[in-house]
Amino acid sequence: MSDERKVQEILARYVRATDRRDGKTQGALFTDDAIVQIFVKTGPSSYEPFGEPLLGGAGVEYAVDNFMAPHPDGGSSHHTTSDHIIDINGDDAHLNAQFVVFEVRAEMRPADGWPANAFGSQGTVRPIESGYYDTDLRRIDGEWKIVAHSVLMDMPIAVGGA
Amino acid sequence: MSDERKVQEILARYVRATDRRDGKTQGALFTDDAIVQIFVKTGPSSYEPFGEPLLGGAGVEYAVDNFMAPHPDGGSSHHTTSDHIIDINGDDAHLNAQFVVFEVRAEMRPADGWPANAFGSQGTVRPIESGYYDTDLRRIDGEWKIVAHSVLMDMPIAVGGA
Amino acid sequence: MSDERKVQEILARYVRATDRRDGKTQGALFTDDAIVQIFVKTGPSSYEPFGEPLLGGAGVEYAVDNFMAPHPDGGSSHHTTSDHIIDINGDDAHLNAQFVVFEVRAEMRPADGWPANAFGSQGTVRPIESGYYDTDLRRIDGEWKIVAHSVLMDMPIAVGGA
Repeated sequence: MSDERKVQEILARYVRATDRRDGKTQGALFTDDAIVQIFVKTGPSSYEPFGEPLLGGAGVEYAVDNFMAPHPDGGSSHHTTSDHIIDINGDDAHLNAQFVVFEVRAEMRPADGWPANAFGSQGTVRPIESGYYDTDLRRIDGEWKIVAHSVLMDMPIAVGGA
Repeated sequence: MSDERKVQEILARYVRATDRRDGKTQGALFTDDAIVQIFVKTGPSSYEPFGEPLLGGAGVEYAVDNFMAPHPDGGSSHHTTSDHIIDINGDDAHLNAQFVVFEVRAEMRPADGWPANAFGSQGTVRPIESGYYDTDLRRIDGEWKIVAHSVLMDMPIAVGGA
Repeated sequence: MSDERKVQEILARYVRATDRRDGKTQGALFTDDAIVQIFVKTGPSSYEPFGEPLLGGAGVEYAVDNFMAPHPDGGSSHHTTSDHIIDINGDDAHLNAQFVVFEVRAEMRPADGWPANAFGSQGTVRPIESGYYDTDLRRIDGEWKIVAHSVLMDMPIAVGGA
């Protein structure tokens, strides 16, 4: 498999772990000293950091397990990425990707069955967040790991009352 | 072309055939004894089968031509896939992909032209379904074919009154 | 890097330039005699040209800088592509891709902070356009350039009152 594909698959595993809220799998994609920072957009090409950076795979694991809102019953999500730009330079790699996050809310089947006029998938799929991932990776013992990860959000993040 | 790209292109042709409701092209991507099963999500990591499996390319062709709702006038769709995880093992391959389905409904141009305040694309693009494709392929006479295909839907599917 | 990846990255740079309204970067992806044409869908598999073709990188640069609506404050967009089909034939390449365009509108943080019940990303992400890119590229002095680019829109485009 080409190095570009290997790097794409790290991101493919990252989004699945995020969507499953699986901190352990997510954290294992990062080095022990990786730095992860969320940024929010403040102008056409400017961003500011949101919150403190996460440090290392252990920091990522803790954040996913403790800070991400769990899905409600019938809820799931898809962090989708596209249009990757990848530079491989020996054992170093850089990845830039667009992302769009979809929130899924399934309807529960009524105890007496679906209404007579119901047809097809029951529930909603809704884009709720977007931006870019900008990521550095390093090959260590033959395996690509994330060493720096910036999540560049298009929209501000509210913390109630702040 | 790498085997990973070849496998991705099978999926790229699959989604185009689905969106065109082109059963013949769709069916030709599958082996004669392929098994296709739709599943619907019942919990955080559980699914149950929906309906009976389709059998082989002929079964897929029949289903696309007879069971998929045709697009209304001005209607189209995009089954989009992302974040592929692909394992090639000799003449066998496994593919996992996220999917999001968009329903497109174009507005018809009024006989006396668009209203004075109309600007840009006229109609709606709406995500309606999502999930994962989990797919096994085999290389036969140099060509990759789908031998097993699971459509893992995030939401339940209603059959009116059932 | 494989030729298929190189071609994908041309498209990845194209969508970023479009979303940044960066005509100069966009134009540099095209040859001087490239032809770019927008089409709108008129039936299940029929399209008609919309407007006149753009000619060459200079025409693309001018159009991006002068005809694309600028983003409002807090606005951005993502032209996302998926399910690429790529044929490389020596120094010629053909690319077909699905696209979905998302419009992002960020909420501005109120001067006295977010409401007490606000949580998460503030604003909207909304799919507004979709279709296919159908693109020819040529390798010139070792670099892939776009020589012909069709934007196949799923929906008609209104010009107010016309």
